[in-house]
Amino acid sequence: MSKIIDNFNDINEIKKMTIQELNDFAKEIRHFLIEKVSKTGGHLASNLGVVELTLSLYNVFDLNKDKLIWDVGHQSYVHKILTGRKDKFDLLRNYGGLSGFPKREESKYDIFEAGHSSTSISAGAGIARARDLQKGDYNVISIIGDGALTGGMSFEALNDIGFRKTKMIIVLNDNQMSISKNVGGMSKYLSQFRIDPTYNRIKKEINSTLRKIPSVGDGMINSIQKIKNGIKQVVVPGMLFENMGITYLGPIDGHDIKEVSKVLKLAKKIDGPVIIHVITKKGKGYKFAEEQPNKFHGVGPFNPLNGELCSSHKESYSEAFGEQIVTLAKENKNIVAITAAMPEGTGLESFSKEFRNRFFDVGIAEQHAVTMAAGMASQGLKPIFAVYSTFLQRAYDQILHDVCIQKLPVIFAIDRAGIVGQDGETHQGIFDLSYLSHIPNMTIMAPKCIGELKTMLTFAVKQDYPIAIRYPRGGDNPNVKMSPINDFKRGKWETLLDGGKIAFIATGKMVQNAILVREKLLNMGIEATVINACFIKPIDKTLISELVDKKYSLVTIEDNIVHGGLGSLVLEYVNSLNKNVKVINLGFNDEFIPHGSVDILYKLYKLDVDGIFDSILKLV
Amino acid sequence: MSKIIDNFNDINEIKKMTIQELNDFAKEIRHFLIEKVSKTGGHLASNLGVVELTLSLYNVFDLNKDKLIWDVGHQSYVHKILTGRKDKFDLLRNYGGLSGFPKREESKYDIFEAGHSSTSISAGAGIARARDLQKGDYNVISIIGDGALTGGMSFEALNDIGFRKTKMIIVLNDNQMSISKNVGGMSKYLSQFRIDPTYNRIKKEINSTLRKIPSVGDGMINSIQKIKNGIKQVVVPGMLFENMGITYLGPIDGHDIKEVSKVLKLAKKIDGPVIIHVITKKGKGYKFAEEQPNKFHGVGPFNPLNGELCSSHKESYSEAFGEQIVTLAKENKNIVAITAAMPEGTGLESFSKEFRNRFFDVGIAEQHAVTMAAGMASQGLKPIFAVYSTFLQRAYDQILHDVCIQKLPVIFAIDRAGIVGQDGETHQGIFDLSYLSHIPNMTIMAPKCIGELKTMLTFAVKQDYPIAIRYPRGGDNPNVKMSPINDFKRGKWETLLDGGKIAFIATGKMVQNAILVREKLLNMGIEATVINACFIKPIDKTLISELVDKKYSLVTIEDNIVHGGLGSLVLEYVNSLNKNVKVINLGFNDEFIPHGSVDILYKLYKLDVDGIFDSILKLV
Repeated sequence: MSKIIDNFNDINEIKKMTIQELNDFAKEIRHFLIEKVSKTGGHLASNLGVVELTLSLYNVFDLNKDKLIWDVGHQSYVHKILTGRKDKFDLLRNYGGLSGFPKREESKYDIFEAGHSSTSISAGAGIARARDLQKGDYNVISIIGDGALTGGMSFEALNDIGFRKTKMIIVLNDNQMSISKNVGGMSKYLSQFRIDPTYNRIKKEINSTLRKIPSVGDGMINSIQKIKNGIKQVVVPGMLFENMGITYLGPIDGHDIKEVSKVLKLAKKIDGPVIIHVITKKGKGYKFAEEQPNKFHGVGPFNPLNGELCSSHKESYSEAFGEQIVTLAKENKNIVAITAAMPEGTGLESFSKEFRNRFFDVGIAEQHAVTMAAGMASQGLKPIFAVYSTFLQRAYDQILHDVCIQKLPVIFAIDRAGIVGQDGETHQGIFDLSYLSHIPNMTIMAPKCIGELKTMLTFAVKQDYPIAIRYPRGGDNPNVKMSPINDFKRGKWETLLDGGKIAFIATGKMVQNAILVREKLLNMGIEATVINACFIKPIDKTLISELVDKKYSLVTIEDNIVHGGLGSLVLEYVNSLNKNVKVINLGFNDEFIPHGSVDILYKLYKLDVDGIFDSILKLV
Repeated sequence: MSKIIDNFNDINEIKKMTIQELNDFAKEIRHFLIEKVSKTGGHLASNLGVVELTLSLYNVFDLNKDKLIWDVGHQSYVHKILTGRKDKFDLLRNYGGLSGFPKREESKYDIFEAGHSSTSISAGAGIARARDLQKGDYNVISIIGDGALTGGMSFEALNDIGFRKTKMIIVLNDNQMSISKNVGGMSKYLSQFRIDPTYNRIKKEINSTLRKIPSVGDGMINSIQKIKNGIKQVVVPGMLFENMGITYLGPIDGHDIKEVSKVLKLAKKIDGPVIIHVITKKGKGYKFAEEQPNKFHGVGPFNPLNGELCSSHKESYSEAFGEQIVTLAKENKNIVAITAAMPEGTGLESFSKEFRNRFFDVGIAEQHAVTMAAGMASQGLKPIFAVYSTFLQRAYDQILHDVCIQKLPVIFAIDRAGIVGQDGETHQGIFDLSYLSHIPNMTIMAPKCIGELKTMLTFAVKQDYPIAIRYPRGGDNPNVKMSPINDFKRGKWETLLDGGKIAFIATGKMVQNAILVREKLLNMGIEATVINACFIKPIDKTLISELVDKKYSLVTIEDNIVHGGLGSLVLEYVNSLNKNVKVINLGFNDEFIPHGSVDILYKLYKLDVDGIFDSILKLV
């Protein structure tokens, strides 16, 4: 039997399909997603959850005119399948292949890019206001998860559009999950509508009242508004939104295409901001993903028949962090751990179970996380905020204003520093050294190996100033054996290997590469020194001065943008010494790094062993 | 007659005062504030608004144990008067004198520092959680304005404490103003309680029910909770907060010490998060400040008798910005202006009146402002976000993630770059070059004079990529005459004065200083070249290469942290050329800059004409 998906080429066809055909199509899309993502890896569960929702949106709206904005964007695979990109899924998230997020260069249907959370209502508000000023005639629809709604900027946007009555539609895709189980008063508030008998009673009353209204169309909308206003005095789901000036519709079953389409059509007619509360199931239709939505949130290649991951397991920095923080917390009762909705990704699961009272998942709320940590530190606790490099960007001001001005001993455990790979531009952790190292009172460290992450944490919890420890995704190169430093002194580097007149000043993961580059050089008869810049800030001025006095050429190597990072710091200091020595700064140049595997990207950007070796050869 | 304020030395005395004495004390404090601030300048209106509120807090709480956290902190003068610092008000905001914000070094009663908005609930949550883990026994009270409540991180914090039921008290100081008239759905929501007859009826009902409850004390609290739960089905003010899990009390008259004290005592007994909605009048008790709360928000020295400012007016960059944007908007209907609650400070008042539909005040919500601007730019509008350098820090991630990755032509008009003076550490605009210049796709400009700000804006609105234009507080040095550039080319610098073998590469306000330094050198017979680095990014590589080839010594001068700023960029490029020329980077070192007058601070940090001249002499 021929499949709908095989012959699907025109988004307008969706409007011609019956509900039965749409449901059949949904099934096919699910099979397609499971089959493709099982090979490439990717965001599976979130996409399985929005199959019917996406079809409903296409059913009701005119995508050649209306603007869909996907919050975070990791749930846009169905949208990509429907907009002529289904044949590109074999190279999903591969270098040069299909991105896992909306990309304006990929398609005119990708209206606004994302990767980080909670931006879609703001972007949608901007687009809707552009439309109104330009006398445009189209709908703006932002699709946002309940997790993303905990991000403060979502609230800033709701507050603004409710006040100015900006006409736009917000589809709240509520699966009671962000990446992990959701937290927060808002989440609790939303969930009550699912079960509240009062609500169900009132819903029936409203429906029966609605049936008594003769006219349909715009008149009906007015009537609904009147009724709403009338019954605002009794409990109405979504009163929280209504109170802010936003019309609330729902909750509705997000897997019921007929129902969702009906409500979307209704929302289209309302003149002002509307929020539609849609309940979906993350991982819907694939048993293993329904049972373990976290595992199948962002997943590597897996066996579709049993849901088992293909890759063999290698110890990761995240795991080591998770283990060590539990060990340290047993000894020091002041240690508390904070996450912004990522207990699993950051390795905090064990801690959250062993120290329930000392574990704080604040939701997708990095700003609050940092300032709350500052508050805790001001009273003698030792807070550790475990966070991905790219997501910490959102708390830059709080790091500077709340932590560093007051020199509060907050520890930032910055995971996914450097290239993270397949998630692309929005996720690469290549800016943290630049956005942290110019902040006064900040200390920045990076371990050369997993063991050193543990000793660094042991060191960090004993200090009384802010410390950021950054470490990469994944684990160590098994071909390089290294012993961790056990006795750190603030700003003191480690000379790992001696020799020659070139000194590699490498940080973090790049130390392993520097050692291998040195081996290659040695094979050519060239000696070199390898230094582990375990502190990025402060740099080891004593050691640098010695090297400069001995006329070493210095090569800094970092998996960060060069400008403003370790290379800049070393260069600025060497320059101030006013001696004539050569400094070479290796790292990323002034550009965003697209998606692709970690290994391929390091190779392409010449920060793998061969790339660094080539750069050095030019120097020698 | 002896005054209370003169003999007041112990915060515990407040608890012994009668309401009449407290009211008398309040009057004296008002006189004191008006008298002192009229001489030094400072935040007057916000402090006049919280006199009774502060006294009530001191009346009810034990400040030797309980923790008061002042959001923003510019309303902490009364608190400072009460905590032994009244004799220091003659040097308020002077270098070495009393800070205008809470400072932990000043007093043990300053629990947590601030300067930026919306941090106090997060900080309070952290402190309350520290207390709970450490088995402490004290109250945590965050005092936050209704304006600050529009900042997303306030919502992140509310969402978190409502969910986890963290015991703390939030005093919502609602004067329907942030710095300007407040905006947002939340604000509208709050204001309805003031006038809603339904609310007043219900309030009476609740009160009469309360009177029927025999027991007082903890039992009463439970009863109130029960009643609240019962009547949640009808409209209750603060339902929005209650829905998030936070008990709401109010609204109450914030100038009624008896009433406020009563409710604070009640709040103390509630086990969980409480929000007390207090209505105050900004500028209360000083006619001129009540009438013009914006003018008296942050004010310079003034005549207390007539409210007139002492300083003579000099044209400012903010004004020039405001004028030019109106001129440009008349020609280009795609230009829109955005502010985060600061239409006056940024110079947007005229624009807001002439182009009502194209003006967007989003409240204290920098994150939303930036991403909304990105949305607008994606549809062909030309959004200009006018914002202070230090407040834009809060939108670092949105600049990178929403604007720069997509290369959207948003214009950032960054006012108050460099030293702003009396507001101190939290307000100095000395980080923007460092946090912006490492972001790919960003262009950064700075005008050497007011006229050039205008031509830069004219240039910027014609480009199709993100541009930041940074400019200082205040105006130009009248002793330096300069002509603005009229034909900018991206990345092309202007050589203002030729000669010698030293080239000053100065940016923004520092160009004026460089010209004067050159004059001083010329008097000594030393020639020098002065270059206007009107683009900080990209730098003028062609010109630098020429200078390097001609063996010039280069001196970069910027009113920003050196690391990661213009100096780093120039040095990194010169280093890559591998020629042996001297580069000196002048700017701020790795430290926060305290409060003091702009002139004094530039002198102290050696970025005034004499300071730069001295640095150069060492080079020559």
